[in-house]
Amino acid sequence: MENLSDLIEFAHRLADAAATESLPLFRTPTRVDNKHDAGFDPVTQADRDAEKAMRSLIETAYPEHSILGEEFGVKQAGPWQWVLDPIDGTRAFITGLPVWGTLISLNHDGDPVLGVFDQPFTGERMTGAKGWPTRHQKDGQVVETATRLCSGLRDAVIATTDHRFFLNAPGETEMATVLETARLMRYGGDCYNYAMLACGQIDAVIEQGLQAYDIQALIPIIEGAGGRVSDWQGGSAAAGGQVLACGSAALHEELLTLFSTAAA
Amino acid sequence: MENLSDLIEFAHRLADAAATESLPLFRTPTRVDNKHDAGFDPVTQADRDAEKAMRSLIETAYPEHSILGEEFGVKQAGPWQWVLDPIDGTRAFITGLPVWGTLISLNHDGDPVLGVFDQPFTGERMTGAKGWPTRHQKDGQVVETATRLCSGLRDAVIATTDHRFFLNAPGETEMATVLETARLMRYGGDCYNYAMLACGQIDAVIEQGLQAYDIQALIPIIEGAGGRVSDWQGGSAAAGGQVLACGSAALHEELLTLFSTAAA
Repeated sequence: MENLSDLIEFAHRLADAAATESLPLFRTPTRVDNKHDAGFDPVTQADRDAEKAMRSLIETAYPEHSILGEEFGVKQAGPWQWVLDPIDGTRAFITGLPVWGTLISLNHDGDPVLGVFDQPFTGERMTGAKGWPTRHQKDGQVVETATRLCSGLRDAVIATTDHRFFLNAPGETEMATVLETARLMRYGGDCYNYAMLACGQIDAVIEQGLQAYDIQALIPIIEGAGGRVSDWQGGSAAAGGQVLACGSAALHEELLTLFSTAAA
Repeated sequence: MENLSDLIEFAHRLADAAATESLPLFRTPTRVDNKHDAGFDPVTQADRDAEKAMRSLIETAYPEHSILGEEFGVKQAGPWQWVLDPIDGTRAFITGLPVWGTLISLNHDGDPVLGVFDQPFTGERMTGAKGWPTRHQKDGQVVETATRLCSGLRDAVIATTDHRFFLNAPGETEMATVLETARLMRYGGDCYNYAMLACGQIDAVIEQGLQAYDIQALIPIIEGAGGRVSDWQGGSAAAGGQVLACGSAALHEELLTLFSTAAA
């Protein structure tokens, strides 16, 4: 059996290694490649180098662990699996905005055990692990974080990465209801929105079309801060897809009632 | 006649004073008031305290200077006028995202002479002044910045704060053309988009409904980095309104041709 403290320390080493590759390339004239035939899905050398650095450390320290990474796919091995997004928010990265992050999680048979969100430009790191309170560190200061106990949609601050993901798509009418009812809707932000939910600054994040590596690290971080993360039907969000993350149980139940009938 | 170096040094003192008020309130459970009867225009104690601190310093050092501030309006005095936005991007501020900034400018009879953009959480400050190269400082390191020489819309990375500002509004069809043609469109970001344009990370920012305090500080910053800022007809953007900021003359001309016929 692996030791959770050791694994967390190792996840921090992965985050350090990713930052060593990504940060020197942030705000430089980076070549941006397009991964997507029918659209624009940017990827840079920073994404590739940061993931390579993390995979190499994992293969040395834990050769019996599986890996799923955004850029280099799956290495199938044992029931422990590292899930890596070297730069979540590549669009923010290539426009110089400090709202991207490195996401690292470890799951056991698909159940997320720990998650790290790292933002090397602001110097922020958040760590969540099963049964542990979520921690936020910056400039050597470590604090435990807690979500905000929003009573319902009328008082809620909602975030989603891009309104276009809901145009002619499942959840379009439900998102229109959210927009009419909620206190504030904010676009953009990527992984940073979930991190700020875990810090009690945002009440809900609603998204669809996510990959496992977009969300998995954020599940232990949000749950360890008192929040809830599920798919739109209330099931596990660990595989990505349609995701509903809330700071309070009351808001989560209200939004599940709204979104559970949206098309899959 | 005022000395430009002294004025820049004083503008940095204003930024320091604003940060002393705003930063301790960032990511705390801040009360958010609504300034807008028919919508949501958030303002916090941080906005008010930061502007008060700056006004007080100006009134002591330069009692003969005019002031225009977002929260406390106009003090009419001489031809030199300080234009202050204590927190541009209050929505980012109240959601914990580090893409807000303090904007400070000084104009003479309406012509911007210097501008400062300050982001105390990331520790970034940008300074522009007439005839000076724009400087970016972080962690004690100061570098001169330059815009990117984008050849045209097809290669351009475009940013605007909120797509809803273009719904049933002037520029709606023109913005649809931009969205279809440009390489990447990014939403959110507020003043940070202009700062990143001046750092060569974004090629154009297109907005409307801006106030003088939303844009004036950014004009010397962008121009000092080699970019262009105007209204949609090519006139001065110092008073706000419809704003078009570009990193290259070629892109500015292409977008002016597109937007100059949009309704005012």
